[in-house]
Amino acid sequence: MSLSDARGVYVIAPTPFFDDGRIDFASIDRMTDFFIASGATGVTVLGQMGEAPKLDHAEALDIAQRVIRRATVPVVVGVSAPGFAGMRSLARASMDAGAAGVMIAPPNTLRTDDQIAGYFRQAADAIGGDVPFVLQDYPLTFSVVMTPAVIRRIVTENPSCVMLKHEDWPGLEKISALRAFERDGGMRPISILCGNGGLFLDFELERGADGAMTGYCFPDMLADVVRLHAEGRRDAMHDLFDAHLPLIRYEQQQGIGLAVRKYVLMRRGVIAAEAQRRPAVVLSAAARAEVDYLLARIARVDARAALA
Amino acid sequence: MSLSDARGVYVIAPTPFFDDGRIDFASIDRMTDFFIASGATGVTVLGQMGEAPKLDHAEALDIAQRVIRRATVPVVVGVSAPGFAGMRSLARASMDAGAAGVMIAPPNTLRTDDQIAGYFRQAADAIGGDVPFVLQDYPLTFSVVMTPAVIRRIVTENPSCVMLKHEDWPGLEKISALRAFERDGGMRPISILCGNGGLFLDFELERGADGAMTGYCFPDMLADVVRLHAEGRRDAMHDLFDAHLPLIRYEQQQGIGLAVRKYVLMRRGVIAAEAQRRPAVVLSAAARAEVDYLLARIARVDARAALA
Amino acid sequence: MSLSDARGVYVIAPTPFFDDGRIDFASIDRMTDFFIASGATGVTVLGQMGEAPKLDHAEALDIAQRVIRRATVPVVVGVSAPGFAGMRSLARASMDAGAAGVMIAPPNTLRTDDQIAGYFRQAADAIGGDVPFVLQDYPLTFSVVMTPAVIRRIVTENPSCVMLKHEDWPGLEKISALRAFERDGGMRPISILCGNGGLFLDFELERGADGAMTGYCFPDMLADVVRLHAEGRRDAMHDLFDAHLPLIRYEQQQGIGLAVRKYVLMRRGVIAAEAQRRPAVVLSAAARAEVDYLLARIARVDARAALA
Amino acid sequence: MSLSDARGVYVIAPTPFFDDGRIDFASIDRMTDFFIASGATGVTVLGQMGEAPKLDHAEALDIAQRVIRRATVPVVVGVSAPGFAGMRSLARASMDAGAAGVMIAPPNTLRTDDQIAGYFRQAADAIGGDVPFVLQDYPLTFSVVMTPAVIRRIVTENPSCVMLKHEDWPGLEKISALRAFERDGGMRPISILCGNGGLFLDFELERGADGAMTGYCFPDMLADVVRLHAEGRRDAMHDLFDAHLPLIRYEQQQGIGLAVRKYVLMRRGVIAAEAQRRPAVVLSAAARAEVDYLLARIARVDARAALA
Repeated sequence: MSLSDARGVYVIAPTPFFDDGRIDFASIDRMTDFFIASGATGVTVLGQMGEAPKLDHAEALDIAQRVIRRATVPVVVGVSAPGFAGMRSLARASMDAGAAGVMIAPPNTLRTDDQIAGYFRQAADAIGGDVPFVLQDYPLTFSVVMTPAVIRRIVTENPSCVMLKHEDWPGLEKISALRAFERDGGMRPISILCGNGGLFLDFELERGADGAMTGYCFPDMLADVVRLHAEGRRDAMHDLFDAHLPLIRYEQQQGIGLAVRKYVLMRRGVIAAEAQRRPAVVLSAAARAEVDYLLARIARVDARAALA
Repeated sequence: MSLSDARGVYVIAPTPFFDDGRIDFASIDRMTDFFIASGATGVTVLGQMGEAPKLDHAEALDIAQRVIRRATVPVVVGVSAPGFAGMRSLARASMDAGAAGVMIAPPNTLRTDDQIAGYFRQAADAIGGDVPFVLQDYPLTFSVVMTPAVIRRIVTENPSCVMLKHEDWPGLEKISALRAFERDGGMRPISILCGNGGLFLDFELERGADGAMTGYCFPDMLADVVRLHAEGRRDAMHDLFDAHLPLIRYEQQQGIGLAVRKYVLMRRGVIAAEAQRRPAVVLSAAARAEVDYLLARIARVDARAALA
Repeated sequence: MSLSDARGVYVIAPTPFFDDGRIDFASIDRMTDFFIASGATGVTVLGQMGEAPKLDHAEALDIAQRVIRRATVPVVVGVSAPGFAGMRSLARASMDAGAAGVMIAPPNTLRTDDQIAGYFRQAADAIGGDVPFVLQDYPLTFSVVMTPAVIRRIVTENPSCVMLKHEDWPGLEKISALRAFERDGGMRPISILCGNGGLFLDFELERGADGAMTGYCFPDMLADVVRLHAEGRRDAMHDLFDAHLPLIRYEQQQGIGLAVRKYVLMRRGVIAAEAQRRPAVVLSAAARAEVDYLLARIARVDARAALA
Repeated sequence: MSLSDARGVYVIAPTPFFDDGRIDFASIDRMTDFFIASGATGVTVLGQMGEAPKLDHAEALDIAQRVIRRATVPVVVGVSAPGFAGMRSLARASMDAGAAGVMIAPPNTLRTDDQIAGYFRQAADAIGGDVPFVLQDYPLTFSVVMTPAVIRRIVTENPSCVMLKHEDWPGLEKISALRAFERDGGMRPISILCGNGGLFLDFELERGADGAMTGYCFPDMLADVVRLHAEGRRDAMHDLFDAHLPLIRYEQQQGIGLAVRKYVLMRRGVIAAEAQRRPAVVLSAAARAEVDYLLARIARVDARAALA
């Protein structure tokens, strides 16, 4: 299967660490299994939320290989790097290890449409035209704003661009615009999976997105939401989504989000520790209590949130 | 009453326009009445969401005077301006007209702690030390990041700084830090009212905020949330808040938020038209249908959302 | 004469203040006369370096009218504003007073090509299609990056866009690209006057610029440089320019530049005081001594720098 | 000798490539010899202008080792990286290879004073307290603004911070402020070497800087300027500096600077090719002619610029 047909939930995997900063490979295995059991149709490693910049080259590759070897679904590897040499070497090594594709985010110095399109042309060329890549569109974090027309240009200029990780905000009209391009024959169809912690997944699906690529701590719920949508059960989909929305919203807090995510995954027994490598954000006691309260409220509707 | 004791909901008022761009003063009156009937304890005019930069000086003052004259609660006037001369003239005229205070946002060129503190010292001096002012802390829009220590410094250096419009994101720990400063005697107590469209109001109140200063299209719900919190009815407060959260979240989309807000206020009969002055954002048909769907879902819990 | 044919030196006028912050109109008159005696072919008021944001609306208009009435050359009025209502009212009033045109800078929130082009379409519409306007392209200060193609689009979409204030940096290739567009018939010819304090004026002229629009404290030198270039006296042009370059460079320091400029104009007897309105930058004793030293060095070549 | 006593000229070394992108080690050797023959008191590799982000980890280390082995002066290695793991591994390997210290620039996401100081504390800890480091202060490129007080705090909190690469702009008052801190006993003395392409080196020395750390294509001239200053020959120092200023200014153009630098070093016979790795800036024919003209003009005063 090509990534351009991808649907469902590609889970953004965090990187589990021990408290002393070493990588916890046993947790990586358990987490990979959990994602697949949760209904994930793919896994993405070494993204922003995977603390990729805190890993050195060898560590990054080790993690990618570990997940690829264990997963029974396609694995996408984040290869964003300050330069093309580092990007290329991680991309080639990942593909050699069996990755389905790589993901590239724009550096935050790009401003004009030409700069953005030029960057992705050079990046695609650097990693090789045979490597399928996911275009990450996340202005809130990267400060790079891509119009639908620029995305169309990148897709058109680079046959190896097969998927959009959509996390523009607001972004609903962008999905509609891209799907309209496809219908009009102006753009080759690509997969659109949505990030932003899932905050708008309900309507993103209704606008034509193929699913989610995000790391919300209940990927099983995300998979259910995508399934309910596919089954045309609109109200049921929103009911489930809305039950989780207070926590999705809480996890969306920049900087704190990953800490919340790891805390819940730890409480769910998926990873052994919530530790981050430095610079790390540590949840306060008040924040933990707030997350616990939110979990208890969700558990009234969704038993998976009933953590002992 | 001093603004430093303000509690409850200060509604950020949009500016109603006719479709041809003229100001709709009849809607301003109706809206002012509606806010007060909704339980607002104050009104803020000429904020970001009031399309203040689209007004010329005379229009801005006309609007401020109109609301001040009609409102039976304190009115805060946004006076942020590219220079101190314009800021001063609007601030003095507003106070002469009976405003309770003014609100000042930092220009997006400030970077260092000293630059930020220096700016507010000069601004306070420019408008006059007798004019109470609200410090607006909204990094997502203004790109100016203020630590709790810098806010403490601004409060300490400027006796006329009486309130924080808190919309840092994430911001829960900031509220806790500021309240800790006050408890320790390190900072004079001020009012903290929260913005950000209300997205975190539930926990902001629990962290010690005094209420909301935001323009969510159901200020009556915000007032209920503040009241339920004051009454110690935690679950009831969250139940009501969570019922609205899908729409609060939807309204939070940068650029689209004001259009949603005006659309709902129009549907609620508060303002005559949803028109914005240019540059204007217009809701697509899909977006309107999404908002209608969200309103219908809220109406299952909160009858105020049952719009014919 | 239309501004689209403008050549020579349009001096960016500072705004002279008394030490107490009042506007010094006598100095404005003397300065206007000095600029014209220096060979200026135009004057620009209320630019960034004119401390425009520190003036209220009435003051700004007073200054524009004063210079327009006195000057025997075309006057351009800076009308950049946070919103179109303010921009329009200053533009219309300036044109009524006899301005030759207005200048518009983009707000620093614009990112994509479409956003930039859209902004200038709306601005041109707001001030009226009969008002000639100068497009200011100054990424270092405004953080808005315009490619040559975007400038061509703005010129093409807006018949009232007649001049580029060019201060991209680096910008030599941009001038070459724009002139190539004109030669190829792809863009209507416009005047290109260069800012950036004149730091690259030597080569900008050689690339095809029509002159300077900047406020370097020796506009008479700038006029000589343009004249020497027009006469084809390349080495003589560079000799004169290079003699001033150490001071041009010194004046280019962001934030300090205006203080240097006012200090030298005061020492040259053009304005009575070097005062700025707050927020003001004050030259240190060391900086004054450095400027004095630079003046003495220039005076070895250019007698105009021999200040008693 | 400790880096905290460093004086003179630390040349920022470019990385010579062949046209096909391979590293040209023979040119690295020749360049290293040239720098030392030019009077360099140190060499800095893998800085911004060394195209460091375009190298993978192994290449970066190879280059650092090559220069360290050949140079008879201290070598500083740029180790800025998106995360501490990569920074640490390059820093440790460089020190093992004989580097005198490393250089660290702040990531462009830092805003508040606390964020900046916190980052350097964590970075110093990550590389190890035994590794002397140079603090790079370059707001124009990194968008991080450090007040003198923040620099003092970093120096005080981190005994291993031994040098400031000063390229704030404007920055003369900052040097004066830091030297005043030292005189008052408020800050441990450090070496201050100035970058910014040397654009203000004349006055930076007079304000108390110890020399230059920059890659201007005539490091021999920079060394002479530092020497003339040390000898108290003020006018002679400025005469030499001013003769080069038109080219220094030309080389200062962001993005083009490195291309100019490599072109002149190639013309001087120091490196074999002017090639950059992608994304590369290529000089236009017009730009080459402009540089040639500037060289010819310098050659009237400084024979080293007389390139056949």
